[in-house]
Amino acid sequence: MADKKIYQASTTAPVNIAVVKYWGKRDPKLNLPTNSSVSVTLSQADLRTHTTAACSSSFGNEDTLLLNSSPQDVTGARTQACFRELRALRSSLEASDSSLPKLSTLPLRIVSENNFPTAAGLASSAAGFAALVRAIANLYELPSSPTDLSRIARQGSGSACRSLFGGYVAWQMGSKADGSDSVAVEVAPASHWPTMRALILVVSAEKKGVSSTSGMQITVATSKLFKHRAEVVVPQHMEMMEKAIKEKDFETFAKVTMMDSNSFHSVCLDTFPPIFYLNDVSRSAIRVVEDINKKAGKIVAAYTFDAGPNAVIYFEEENVEQVAGVLKSALGSLDGWQGRDIKVQDTEGVDAKAVQVLKEGVSRVILTSVGEGPIRTEESLIAENGEPLKK
Amino acid sequence: MADKKIYQASTTAPVNIAVVKYWGKRDPKLNLPTNSSVSVTLSQADLRTHTTAACSSSFGNEDTLLLNSSPQDVTGARTQACFRELRALRSSLEASDSSLPKLSTLPLRIVSENNFPTAAGLASSAAGFAALVRAIANLYELPSSPTDLSRIARQGSGSACRSLFGGYVAWQMGSKADGSDSVAVEVAPASHWPTMRALILVVSAEKKGVSSTSGMQITVATSKLFKHRAEVVVPQHMEMMEKAIKEKDFETFAKVTMMDSNSFHSVCLDTFPPIFYLNDVSRSAIRVVEDINKKAGKIVAAYTFDAGPNAVIYFEEENVEQVAGVLKSALGSLDGWQGRDIKVQDTEGVDAKAVQVLKEGVSRVILTSVGEGPIRTEESLIAENGEPLKK
Repeated sequence: MADKKIYQASTTAPVNIAVVKYWGKRDPKLNLPTNSSVSVTLSQADLRTHTTAACSSSFGNEDTLLLNSSPQDVTGARTQACFRELRALRSSLEASDSSLPKLSTLPLRIVSENNFPTAAGLASSAAGFAALVRAIANLYELPSSPTDLSRIARQGSGSACRSLFGGYVAWQMGSKADGSDSVAVEVAPASHWPTMRALILVVSAEKKGVSSTSGMQITVATSKLFKHRAEVVVPQHMEMMEKAIKEKDFETFAKVTMMDSNSFHSVCLDTFPPIFYLNDVSRSAIRVVEDINKKAGKIVAAYTFDAGPNAVIYFEEENVEQVAGVLKSALGSLDGWQGRDIKVQDTEGVDAKAVQVLKEGVSRVILTSVGEGPIRTEESLIAENGEPLKK
Repeated sequence: MADKKIYQASTTAPVNIAVVKYWGKRDPKLNLPTNSSVSVTLSQADLRTHTTAACSSSFGNEDTLLLNSSPQDVTGARTQACFRELRALRSSLEASDSSLPKLSTLPLRIVSENNFPTAAGLASSAAGFAALVRAIANLYELPSSPTDLSRIARQGSGSACRSLFGGYVAWQMGSKADGSDSVAVEVAPASHWPTMRALILVVSAEKKGVSSTSGMQITVATSKLFKHRAEVVVPQHMEMMEKAIKEKDFETFAKVTMMDSNSFHSVCLDTFPPIFYLNDVSRSAIRVVEDINKKAGKIVAAYTFDAGPNAVIYFEEENVEQVAGVLKSALGSLDGWQGRDIKVQDTEGVDAKAVQVLKEGVSRVILTSVGEGPIRTEESLIAENGEPLKK
């Protein structure tokens, strides 16, 4: 008589936004990067993926994945790599303790929900693969550390490895051909520098032209400036950034964040054909941040842009009004300001044309902060009978 | 009794648009560049500065310059350097032949007219300084070669040195501290490859944020990618470009033109704070050129952008309809198509959104071609009594 029991475990996992960017793979199959990177993990109160992983012999023959109620293809090499590696770890546990149920042989049913729009260019694949790997690791009761799991999540989506930790996280590029030393490590926990805030300006963009996966490999192949960024510029930025985080030196943190974002978008533009992620709205966000800093007489805000036009603006809580207050004066009518009482500031000294472009081009804001890594939860997305719960 | 005679000479001089860009000075005072560059001289039928240089003891005590009927400041170091060097050359002629009138001691009156809007970002300073230097050299009857004069014009405006020649022109960066080997030379005359055309899309832009003079020095000081461009990338582009011109290899000419423009704008973006000359209209022009090339099944068009949003699109006469014909279908209602009967082509396969952005953002077009260097003319802008002629 087969065991029809349904095993399950759930987690949430965060989004992270890099301050030293990942762009370029030295091994596309293993997702091994051409340079190290650093990110800030954002609070799951605002942005998170919630994932339940279950397995049971009653689930038929195939692994399945439901994201926001839509079935996803799990036959891709990246998802398969995660499943395979996690099953291998479970399998060796089972081999060393015969009392353990043979979960590694059972089909997986994964159910995921994002609390933010998937397609808004908000690093959803990072949170998604981190949650998937963490949920299955919980289901399998693996003793693996977050760094061990980061090695697996990396194969799902490069930047996902950094979402296994909270706070300030480095992805060390590593040098081994098998990728075993290409893992995420904590630079500092969220509690070390808890006053870090992030304001995301979601830009109502045209459809993304070039995916980051294909874009970065065209950069590696064609940009003549790229190698210099990867080999010379990023190592400098990494060193400055890790020191800035350890010393809670916002000015250096901000300068390196802005310069590294610009450097990344430079090598996109130097790609042939060129890749543009920044548009006129993004440029206006840069201009407004520059003017906010001028108005403050010091660097109180830092912009950064991933592979899309959305601006992420980092600042410290003590400067919330000087930064978010100015932007709220332009964008106060949009969704996303609820729950925080921020006094609107005047925009004197801030380029009026740039403010107007933001008003016309930003569709919503998300005000959030540095946050924790994946959190195990008893809240399940799968009913006791094994069926996905309807939201 | 003083000689009140009015001596005068006139010339026209062309605009040039670089295909390997000048960006960065190793000596700001002498306008010595950090890298060599190559340009195409454009036809003076469409874009030229017309300059008359006169001198007379009746002109008072000061050198003066009238551009498009507005008095210009001539006390700046750059204009002064040109006057000084030209006077020194005249002075040594006078020293070796005492029969020559002592023009070097007389005040200069310069009158200039552009046949295009000065502020449209159309390299007017290049044509302006080339015409100024050439006109004074004519007035002084200097035996100097165009390369000799390029050394002087360079001190007025770097790229002006390339406007002393027609056709395809290189500005060799040189290595000497005094700049004596930083001069323009002909790569090939216009007659070598006369079928080169240029379509300029004049973008109705916001006011230029950062002048090229100050912008390039901020790049030199802050961009971490800049040195690699100047020292490694540009020498490669120079070699490929000179060979492409000599072999009339449009495909290589076009690829290097586009890649070098992108590389230049990359280091602008890598500057801190970043410098943006390309806007969403420029990006759409790039997209349309990419689609024109896809549609043609080969590279028939090349975009390039100077320190502003205007697109210059190079193509060969045999592909006029495949290139200009497609753009005319989008922009046919604008000024600038007169005098050429170009059959409008359909825009199938060309991104419709990009076409729409061009329609909204381009204010006029200029359809021109490779052309000759400065041309001496008897048409004077100064009357026989020494007064500027009213236009």
